[in-house]
Amino acid sequence: MAGTDHSGGESGRGDGAEPVFILVAPQMGENIGATARAMWNFGLDRLRLVAPRDGWPNPRAEAMASGAAHVLDGVSVPETTLDARADLGFVFATTARDRSLTKEVMTPERAMAEARAMIAAGESVGILFGPERAGLENADIVRANAVISVPVNPAFGSLNLAQSALLLAYEWMRQGDATPPSSYVMAGAERATGIEVEKFLDHLVGRLDATGFFFPEHKRPHMVAVLENLFRRAPLTDADIRVLHGVVRALAVKVPGRK
Amino acid sequence: MAGTDHSGGESGRGDGAEPVFILVAPQMGENIGATARAMWNFGLDRLRLVAPRDGWPNPRAEAMASGAAHVLDGVSVPETTLDARADLGFVFATTARDRSLTKEVMTPERAMAEARAMIAAGESVGILFGPERAGLENADIVRANAVISVPVNPAFGSLNLAQSALLLAYEWMRQGDATPPSSYVMAGAERATGIEVEKFLDHLVGRLDATGFFFPEHKRPHMVAVLENLFRRAPLTDADIRVLHGVVRALAVKVPGRK
Repeated sequence: MAGTDHSGGESGRGDGAEPVFILVAPQMGENIGATARAMWNFGLDRLRLVAPRDGWPNPRAEAMASGAAHVLDGVSVPETTLDARADLGFVFATTARDRSLTKEVMTPERAMAEARAMIAAGESVGILFGPERAGLENADIVRANAVISVPVNPAFGSLNLAQSALLLAYEWMRQGDATPPSSYVMAGAERATGIEVEKFLDHLVGRLDATGFFFPEHKRPHMVAVLENLFRRAPLTDADIRVLHGVVRALAVKVPGRK
Repeated sequence: MAGTDHSGGESGRGDGAEPVFILVAPQMGENIGATARAMWNFGLDRLRLVAPRDGWPNPRAEAMASGAAHVLDGVSVPETTLDARADLGFVFATTARDRSLTKEVMTPERAMAEARAMIAAGESVGILFGPERAGLENADIVRANAVISVPVNPAFGSLNLAQSALLLAYEWMRQGDATPPSSYVMAGAERATGIEVEKFLDHLVGRLDATGFFFPEHKRPHMVAVLENLFRRAPLTDADIRVLHGVVRALAVKVPGRK
């Protein structure tokens, strides 16, 4: 993951250039820890807990968060959702699709694009997540500026708290990520040059000529083109070319008794 | 989620127009069930299990998969990874970033774009996931056509099996999803028309004029513009407008003793 370097926590180590995740009345400590891990997988570590059911700190959360402990170390625990969002300019509420309130509803993709734009402009952004069973109460959704709804299968929506946090953190990362969409790992080798591939093809075709492989003769140009196309299509390394030379030499050895 | 309608399973009920998820040597039944749920959240249900540690069927997997049981009902259990991919044209291996094999490495985003293009062209596509602790063996990665690597925080990558499956299933859905990126839920109301807003503004400004709110007079045009801009900016419903008329009327009541 390139382009991200937020080592700071909610306690103030970071530069604030990321959304704050706010868990409202989370029930299971394990889910708080799993949410911290989900966030930190994508470099996010600003977490607030509103009225966690089992108090704070919570040993179960800490056990689950191993490796992402600093996210929990930096947690703040405001008493109410209003307190949790008091310093934030724009707050999203994550909910299943709901038609009881007049509110803008965004996909995770759009929401994180908006969040990136606002944060780039120096604004502060939070994302509210409701308790495991019931989700956010209407009062908390009313106080949010917009709703995020993940477009799940209408026949089966069962994202849990940490999964919802994972998807939002992933979307945040994805939209700022500088990882090349596709790259070739070369495993210590170099990509074969044109002349290396050409020499191998000469070697292969020469050996095949000696065996009478290209028959009838008028089909030879097409068959050579097929072979060349095959070996030009594959992304070959210099090491691959050495192996292929060896393979051709070995196959072309005159075995006693062979015609 | 629009644009997706795969009710079929690996057992043959579906149209095959989706990637097959292949779990290689999964250990915990719970993780198989959680993977089935993760997939079905995004409408995917073609699942294969290669040599599951605790055999198959697995009651723990079934207990965890509740609501996504048909994914497990349709599971096939090939003996080897080669068997599992025998009928598939293109197979991705999911791995943490690895430099020991020369292979194309893609982000989830690029990989699912490629998968969509191949499947649209009638090809068959699979995604290999390794066992929980060790991940895929080199032999399985060698046999894959390309690698998917999620760009996690270099300081902390801890995606578990079901989370990896969730992110791939989400990416698959996201790229084919027809959900509007943003929409207003109107909760049974209609968006207020221009004339409704205008009449409310006339009401408000008239009442404010009566109180001497616009002072000094030369600032009146700007202050009226600020108010109009505020109420034109908010997406108001006809119900909101009725409430706002009531608010203004109530505030403007002459209270005895008030100046």
